[in-house]
Amino acid sequence: MMMADIMKCSLCKTNPKIYYQRHSGLNFCKECFIKYILKRARKTIGRKNITKDMTIIVGLSGGKDSLVMAHVLKELYKPIPNTRIIGVMVDEGIEGYRKEGITHAIEFCEEYNMEYKIATFKETVGYNLDEIVKIAKEKNVNLNPCTFCGVIRRKILNKVSLNENADYLAIGHNLDDIAQAVMMNYIKGDINKLAILGKDAGSSLFVKRMKPLQDIPEHEVLLFADLIGLNYHKDPCPYSSISYRAEVSDIVENLEKKHPGTSYSIVSGFKKLIEHIPVEKNMSICKYCGEAGSSEICKSCALLENLGIRV
Amino acid sequence: MMMADIMKCSLCKTNPKIYYQRHSGLNFCKECFIKYILKRARKTIGRKNITKDMTIIVGLSGGKDSLVMAHVLKELYKPIPNTRIIGVMVDEGIEGYRKEGITHAIEFCEEYNMEYKIATFKETVGYNLDEIVKIAKEKNVNLNPCTFCGVIRRKILNKVSLNENADYLAIGHNLDDIAQAVMMNYIKGDINKLAILGKDAGSSLFVKRMKPLQDIPEHEVLLFADLIGLNYHKDPCPYSSISYRAEVSDIVENLEKKHPGTSYSIVSGFKKLIEHIPVEKNMSICKYCGEAGSSEICKSCALLENLGIRV
Repeated sequence: MMMADIMKCSLCKTNPKIYYQRHSGLNFCKECFIKYILKRARKTIGRKNITKDMTIIVGLSGGKDSLVMAHVLKELYKPIPNTRIIGVMVDEGIEGYRKEGITHAIEFCEEYNMEYKIATFKETVGYNLDEIVKIAKEKNVNLNPCTFCGVIRRKILNKVSLNENADYLAIGHNLDDIAQAVMMNYIKGDINKLAILGKDAGSSLFVKRMKPLQDIPEHEVLLFADLIGLNYHKDPCPYSSISYRAEVSDIVENLEKKHPGTSYSIVSGFKKLIEHIPVEKNMSICKYCGEAGSSEICKSCALLENLGIRV
Repeated sequence: MMMADIMKCSLCKTNPKIYYQRHSGLNFCKECFIKYILKRARKTIGRKNITKDMTIIVGLSGGKDSLVMAHVLKELYKPIPNTRIIGVMVDEGIEGYRKEGITHAIEFCEEYNMEYKIATFKETVGYNLDEIVKIAKEKNVNLNPCTFCGVIRRKILNKVSLNENADYLAIGHNLDDIAQAVMMNYIKGDINKLAILGKDAGSSLFVKRMKPLQDIPEHEVLLFADLIGLNYHKDPCPYSSISYRAEVSDIVENLEKKHPGTSYSIVSGFKKLIEHIPVEKNMSICKYCGEAGSSEICKSCALLENLGIRV
């Protein structure tokens, strides 16, 4: 009786199941689940991109998503000759939060024998995020910390990628992250952001992006991280709770609980929609920093100028 | 002191304000608000559509939206020669609910000297909605009553419109209704429904639709109804609370409360998106009922056949 209760893996039919995937109805054992995630990511990246002489910059926060992504990339490119996978940690300067994430990322890179770089807000734009948020508050500029952070972080990651002549910048967004971002821009009615979310800018000024985990739901990324024994940073960013995104994240999470597959349907509908939407390609060089932007002043310089702290 | 507290209308600067519009910052008196709503609807309908020799079928449930729409159409077409505006009430057969709505609609039509017709589910498809819902339950068919109701109601309204050779079928959806429908299909990832929502089918088998209130938020429709003293049906449909739409409606309502303008941004973003999306134009004649459908069996006949009650 007790033995019969142990469910077997639907794939290998041998090992005990450790995970039941609701939408497919499949049971997975540890080994088959790990293989499945690698296969899923390989499909997302595309066979033609897993080829020799590639340079990939990997944004590493030290959290589960970025470290799982880096692990997956290391595995998938292991048999490929002459591939460079370089981790980049961006230190925004968030007191009591960022240092621990970077520590985890460094430990990961050392364990995986992965080249890495650390870039800071301070050395790039002259101020760290805590200082920028404080100044914005003092000047009564009502902008979410996540907006500053996202704009500057993207600028830094793009800059490092161009400096390294990278083929791709890999970002650890999972399916839930993408569903949230899509919903947020649906609600805001921001179709330019939707277009950028779904497609590359198509300009040599912006390195192409790769999101190996984009088809994998967050809880599967988490399970994978724990199964392979990753030591990742678990704390949430202290600024995240006050973001609009957190509100939308709650909405999507609640819908997903009541109607499993909601994140997937949001993203798959979005992908179909976005095929028809043209990306605005008026890229230019920022007259202040000389880097890529969508108008004559890049978003990062515009935000800092608005605060009177553009260096 | 007391006199100074009475705020004046921002438009006529004379009458006391009765409504403050948050997004514009304007105060309206009763007269200016009524004029404003008529102007807004005229803009939505388009000047070129307010012309002589038109036949417009107006779907009337007896609720505030459909009666406000009918009032607005009557007002806008008053100076136009040779226009027919015909009310159509669809009796789905919902015990303890629909009769009262139809009574309000008939009273409206008589007061406004408006031609009207009553069509029933029973005489069109052989069963009323209560019977269909009961049969679905008995046969364990897990389909929302709103799905049956919407599909059959649309079929009936289209049929009546074609019989009357109508130029337009006018539907009383307000801005909030449209925001909800858009969000629901964003979440389901149903881009065909999104395309149909945003555009006419472009086929002579389907009469063109007009939504005069589509740019007016629900609370303004309600205020207008009360200001002009409309006597409308106030009860909610007994089936509405169990619909997926009710869940999405709560989400949009909560967002609107915290972030005024959300419904507007959802719809305006959607309109920009939808310009790029082609409508699938494979219209055909249903092999059972001989009416328009998107495949060889129309949705109405398919639903009824699935229940084994297609007449």
